[in-house]
Amino acid sequence: LNLLRGLLRGDTRALAKAISIIEDGGSETENLLNHLYFHTGRAWVVGLTGPPGTGKSTLLTRLALEYRKKGLKIGILAFDPTSPFTGGAFLGDRFRMVDLAGDQSIFIRSMASRGGKGGLTREARNAVRLLDAFGKDMIFVETVGTGQADIEISKVADVVIVVLMPELGDEIQMSKAGLMEAGDIFVVNKADLPRAHKLVSEIRQVLGPRDGWKPMVLKTTAARGIGTSGVVAAIEDHKQFSTVAHRRQSTVSERSSHELLEVLKKSFDELLEEKISQGAAFRAAVEDIAKRRTHPRAAGKKLLNTILRSEFRN
Amino acid sequence: LNLLRGLLRGDTRALAKAISIIEDGGSETENLLNHLYFHTGRAWVVGLTGPPGTGKSTLLTRLALEYRKKGLKIGILAFDPTSPFTGGAFLGDRFRMVDLAGDQSIFIRSMASRGGKGGLTREARNAVRLLDAFGKDMIFVETVGTGQADIEISKVADVVIVVLMPELGDEIQMSKAGLMEAGDIFVVNKADLPRAHKLVSEIRQVLGPRDGWKPMVLKTTAARGIGTSGVVAAIEDHKQFSTVAHRRQSTVSERSSHELLEVLKKSFDELLEEKISQGAAFRAAVEDIAKRRTHPRAAGKKLLNTILRSEFRN
Repeated sequence: LNLLRGLLRGDTRALAKAISIIEDGGSETENLLNHLYFHTGRAWVVGLTGPPGTGKSTLLTRLALEYRKKGLKIGILAFDPTSPFTGGAFLGDRFRMVDLAGDQSIFIRSMASRGGKGGLTREARNAVRLLDAFGKDMIFVETVGTGQADIEISKVADVVIVVLMPELGDEIQMSKAGLMEAGDIFVVNKADLPRAHKLVSEIRQVLGPRDGWKPMVLKTTAARGIGTSGVVAAIEDHKQFSTVAHRRQSTVSERSSHELLEVLKKSFDELLEEKISQGAAFRAAVEDIAKRRTHPRAAGKKLLNTILRSEFRN
Repeated sequence: LNLLRGLLRGDTRALAKAISIIEDGGSETENLLNHLYFHTGRAWVVGLTGPPGTGKSTLLTRLALEYRKKGLKIGILAFDPTSPFTGGAFLGDRFRMVDLAGDQSIFIRSMASRGGKGGLTREARNAVRLLDAFGKDMIFVETVGTGQADIEISKVADVVIVVLMPELGDEIQMSKAGLMEAGDIFVVNKADLPRAHKLVSEIRQVLGPRDGWKPMVLKTTAARGIGTSGVVAAIEDHKQFSTVAHRRQSTVSERSSHELLEVLKKSFDELLEEKISQGAAFRAAVEDIAKRRTHPRAAGKKLLNTILRSEFRN
């Protein structure tokens, strides 16, 4: 694949084309992703989520620039329809984004998630792999915290930052159980607003340790760059912890296991469609069901057993 | 099963209890449905769908009473949240329903569909089987035509009646492609309103034959019982056609085939969860993926092949 070679060489046009290909989800997608897989696993993935309007994109921009200064190669994937990266916000933010976009070493891409059951996870995972193979050191994935999206993002990210703000209806923000469970680092942004401190202590009250990591709660005023280096430090702390505690390793195993299950189901569905449902045994079983000689469940179990090797039957 | 015996004996309380059981979807559900299956396949299933407010329930009540007069045993399942059967409508209609409900030989049940992908089809199918085994000759299934529901209902019903009315925004009604494709019989209800004739001819224009059946278009004023016997005649015509043209037979085969595929997928998922994902081969594959020794797709295909008998591998 020419495209793959371009991608691994760091050709930005190849990357843009590859992302379009996996967004379309056509026949080339799988082949590309299969080959790509061997060149992935290096990048650190930072998920940002939270209610609309809390300043996720502004914070993300600051974080990206700080990591850029450290010499890291940055990728940004925005799955958030309210994000200025995806083009849906007011001019002030968009302006700042233009600065970012002008930086050739920061790749920004807004993604139109088809959503649905695990859809965002799959699309984010694939796009992250492209950026990873391309050579990005750090990949930010922004999504809007709507309950489903934050859970999906936590299946892709190595660290999840939940961005909240004072006076947005604290109870509403906190009551989103998914958000509170997804977060490794909580950022109370727009901390110059009143009641910021109160929100911090409210968040602390509901948080418990997650797999040995005690979630951190930080205050920022991202628009003025206040507190953002503290977030960078927190990301590094968490990275350190994940590596030392072998948490990363077990996360990788867990995700590999999920993905393998996905592939097995999909492959079996293909086998059903292309082979089994075309066979004589299947047609005979359909006939038995239609004629009420057996019930569907029994026919299905029996047919499955004829497909399987003996040690997998029941 | 005591419940099954009660059901087959025609005990109404057993039927009500059985419907509650399958609505809950607990562990007894499958066993009950499996046993039940051998006593099904007799009843004729009439689906009614269409936009809210077109008078589906009123028409249904009339049809039920006409069939009742012929001595048939009637069951009614309402999946329509706007239906008076489900308790969501104005007093006039509800009153008429009370009359119906007083008739011991007409069983009415409103169903709370969990909806979702094929959910209505599955729930309707199961409830229809209960009523069928119970001895009902004719089962009406009412649903609101929202695009998805009419497609789902057409997977359960032997005949689908689409109920429309004049002045409801004809273009909107007609543009619902699902509705137009689902219908075997189209009823323009509230035909005493102006433009009824216009709607009839508009419907006729977009209709083509479906598997040899030319959909009928009829006018009714169900609230006053006008035209409803014409609908009964149309249902009988369609039944005659289905039987003679062996359409029923092929429909039964097709549905059995779909259900068998469903069962195979579900059984395979169970096998994955309970057996395969617990095995050493699975763990080894996960390790290979995590370590980037192979890509997920290849690992999945390979593992699937070790599970399958040789003739099903690829």
